[in-house]
This record gives sequence, C-alpha cells and structure tokens, in this order.
Amino acid sequence: MEFKEELKKYNEIINNELEKYIRKDKCLENKLNRSVEYSLMAGGKRLRPTLMLATYKLFKDDFSECLPFSVAMEMIHNFSLIHDDLPGIDNDDIRHGKPTNHKKFNEATAILAGDSLLNYAYLTISKDIQKNYSYKKIECLFELSNAVDRMIIGEYVDTEYEGKQALVDELEYMHKNKTGALIRASVRIGAILAEANKDKIEELTFFAEKIGLAFQIKDDILSEIGNEKILGKPVGNDKKRGKCTYVSKYGLDQSKKELNKNIQEAIEIINKYGNKGEFLKNIAIYIKDREK
Amino acid sequence: MEFKEELKKYNEIINNELEKYIRKDKCLENKLNRSVEYSLMAGGKRLRPTLMLATYKLFKDDFSECLPFSVAMEMIHNFSLIHDDLPGIDNDDIRHGKPTNHKKFNEATAILAGDSLLNYAYLTISKDIQKNYSYKKIECLFELSNAVDRMIIGEYVDTEYEGKQALVDELEYMHKNKTGALIRASVRIGAILAEANKDKIEELTFFAEKIGLAFQIKDDILSEIGNEKILGKPVGNDKKRGKCTYVSKYGLDQSKKELNKNIQEAIEIINKYGNKGEFLKNIAIYIKDREK
Repeated sequence: MEFKEELKKYNEIINNELEKYIRKDKCLENKLNRSVEYSLMAGGKRLRPTLMLATYKLFKDDFSECLPFSVAMEMIHNFSLIHDDLPGIDNDDIRHGKPTNHKKFNEATAILAGDSLLNYAYLTISKDIQKNYSYKKIECLFELSNAVDRMIIGEYVDTEYEGKQALVDELEYMHKNKTGALIRASVRIGAILAEANKDKIEELTFFAEKIGLAFQIKDDILSEIGNEKILGKPVGNDKKRGKCTYVSKYGLDQSKKELNKNIQEAIEIINKYGNKGEFLKNIAIYIKDREK
Repeated sequence: MEFKEELKKYNEIINNELEKYIRKDKCLENKLNRSVEYSLMAGGKRLRPTLMLATYKLFKDDFSECLPFSVAMEMIHNFSLIHDDLPGIDNDDIRHGKPTNHKKFNEATAILAGDSLLNYAYLTISKDIQKNYSYKKIECLFELSNAVDRMIIGEYVDTEYEGKQALVDELEYMHKNKTGALIRASVRIGAILAEANKDKIEELTFFAEKIGLAFQIKDDILSEIGNEKILGKPVGNDKKRGKCTYVSKYGLDQSKKELNKNIQEAIEIINKYGNKGEFLKNIAIYIKDREK
C-alpha cells in the first residue's frame, strides 16, 4: 500500500474509534460535549495514535487492544491544544483553519472542555483496564501520566521563556518535554502493549525521541516560513511573541540541518526492522517534509 | 479522642503525606512547582481525604494503603479550585484568605498548575498501582476518574446557568455533580480499598450523597450570610453573579431545613456503625455547623 493511503487508513480507524467516545445525550451539558467534539474532531494529523498503533504492528498484527490507549493519547493531545490556545497562554484565534475552542465557544467552556478531555483519557483507560486487565496496561498508564506531566512542564517553560533568551540546554529540555513527551510515550506504549522486549523498547524510544525533536524543529520552521493556508494557523506568531524556538536560536539553515540529522538517525534505527518498519520510516520522512 | 483533636490528627497525616509530593528540585519549572505548592498547601479542610481515610477505618485499622488515593483526591480538589477561580470562570481574587493562584502568580501559570495537579493525581495512582498491585485499585481508579468527569460537568452547568433560572431537577443535578461527586468517590474509594462488602459500599454511598448535598447547601448559605473573615473569601459573590444556588432558589429558611434533613439522614445511616462511626457522624455535624 502506498504511504499516503496507509496513513489515511490509520486516520479513519482512529477517527471512527474517537467517534464512539463523543457524548451526545446529556442535554444540560450539551454545549460542553459539543465543545469537546469540536476540538477532538477538528481534523488533526492523528500522529500520536498512529505512531502507537504502527509501533504495535511491528510486533503483532491485530492492534485492537491498543485502541483505548490511542484514543486516550489523542484526547490528551487535544486537551493540550485547547489550553495552549487560551487567552491566558498563547491567545491563539485559529487552529486547523478554524476558530480555536474559546473563540468558537467561550473561555469557561474551553477551560472545562480541556479539563474534561484530560480526565476523559484516564476514564477511558480505567474502563479498559477494568474490562481487560493486564499488568502491562498499568505500565502504560504510568508512561502516559508521566509524559503528560513532562508535557505540561514543557509548556510552562515555553510560556515563561517568552521574550527571554534560553540557553541551549534549556531549549532542548523545553522541546523534549513540550512535544517530545507524548510522541515518546505513544511509541513506548505501542511497544509495551505488543510485549516487545526491553532492548526493542529502548531502541524504539530513541527512534521516538529523534522524530519528536524533529517534529518540534519542523514546527518552528513552519511557524516562520510555512504557508498559512495549508498550515491552518497564522505564520510568524512565535516571532511576534518572542518565543524561544530552534529558528530564533540557530537560524533557519542550521534548524533545517538539525531536522535532517534527527530524521536520518531515526531512519537508521527503524531500518533494522526491514519491511515491517517501512510505514514508520515513512512517518519520519513525512514529519520532515510536511507542510502542516 | 475529642472530635476536633481527631480531625486535626487526620489533617496532619494528610498534610505530611502531601508534603512528600511537593517538587523542589527542578529550577526551570520552579515557579510552576511553587504555584502547585501554594494552592495545595494553602490550608484547606482536607475533607475529602479525611472522609476516605475515616471510611477505610470503619473496616480496617491501618489506612496506609489508602494514602496515595487520598493524596490524589486532594490534588484533584485543588486543581478544581484553581481552575474555578480563573478569570474565565468565576474570576475570584481570594481563596482561604489569600490571593487566588492566578492573582499570586499569573493566569498561564494557574491554568498549567491546575492541569498539572489533575494529571499528578493519576501519576501518583499509577505509581502506587505499579508498586503494589491489586484489582480493587483499578476499581478505585474508575471511581475517581468517573467522579472527576461528573465534577467538571457540574462546574460547567453551574457556569452556564449564571444569571438564568434553573429547574429544581437541574439544580440538584448540578450540585450532585459539582460538589457531591468527589465526596461520594472519597467514601466509596475508602470502602472499596478496605474491602467492604457490596451492601456496605452502597449504604455508605447514601451517607456520602447526603453529606455531599448538605455540604453544597451549607456552601450556598455561607456564601450568602457567612463571616468573610472566617470564610477567607468574599461573601455575596454568588448573588452578585446571579448564580443558581439553594438559597436563590428556596430562600434561606428552606435551605437550612434541607441542610438539617440531609445531615439527619446521614447520621441515621452512620449510627448503624456504633462507636466506629462516631468520627464520621461528627464530620456530618461539622459539615452542618462549619463557618468556613
């Protein structure tokens, strides 16, 4: 199957699964449910759950036991987008080419929709573990909550450094946590659920860390020189706000080199999996070449 | 032991336990950690973890296996306070006689400190389950995440109904969820961890629902006629905002009757436990008589 087709197939599986978690029937909280649905189904790339399922597939064919965690991961990603966009944080008006959650609804609804999505992820996992218990799922619960902890810290440091000059170490620390933590956890959870051995889990963790860092570098580049229409959000906001990004720190050329280097290293790791790793290899290339 | 002394003892145990979870050592996120500490250690009543531990003690003496869940419950309670106080929701300046989190720090920090506390609760539980697994803890994870889901919905409905007239059913639905959900889950988790039988769990759930509703009614009364100095927050804000409260709906006299009725019913349930239930009975009376 061609990469784009396969990616689309993953997207459809994840979207179908997410649809099952959209709540329709409570009239008093209807607007809260619509606000959650609005962000969750806004058409993101589904990168994190796709990585989780594809990693699982390196080891086992039927990834259905992986679906609740992949849904939870996407819920958490969307919680973080809603809160980051809030007036009190990034104050962004546009996301995925549409008004951000607090613009479409209101600030109170957006705060609570974000809270609800973060918690809904854990509710989803607790129900899944109740239904089909296995100890590896407890490990994955730790992986997830630990990654979210790191992500929130990364977002906080990002906010705090606005308009300030970060040291090289600080920039890496921030980016590793802000974007990298969920990407890393997605791959690790896929591997743990598929019962990969420890060496494989560590190896794939390196792969995840490389593509996670690359993803952030590419984000910084797109925020500087992306196409606003394709990107679905304004270009140049990071610069306007004085955000510490790869581009502001190293310039565009050096950032591109750093991007390529990380993707190359990721590919070298995943090449060991031969044909089975083809899809994940293509995801790495997609992260480098994407325009949104 | 006298009730006040015993309550103080519980408070000390919970505060000592919470102290262990305060993070000190990460300089980049220091302000986030201080913001979390500021709210978590601001001197709340610790009602929810106290209820959890005291319920556990109805059945078993050593409640140490209950401590991680009680800490998680208090983290979640404090997350909800930080977010409810935000400018986008209740826009409150004072809590426990001190500036609210976003007033003391800033809005971005308060949003992220709340997010962090909610997630930290699940990180705490996942570590505890990893260390000492038992299936009853999975049930408690469900109880907790389900209660938080209800709480957020309750808070949302509360926000939406500002300035509007709620129906009787709607008011009860909102209050059951907003305050009642965590109180109910605290008692249930205490009972589940202590391996109480199903009948006892159901019976204690009724007790928890009664005191949960009573707690909210008393809150509404205090918000109307409390002593600002003792209460540690402004009186009359609910009225000013046109919040739907018991007092706005039924008036002060009827609200007091409703409060007494619920506490009386709670006491009847807990009386069955004789001497062992004495402390929980006194908590019910304390909820009725408290001035803050």
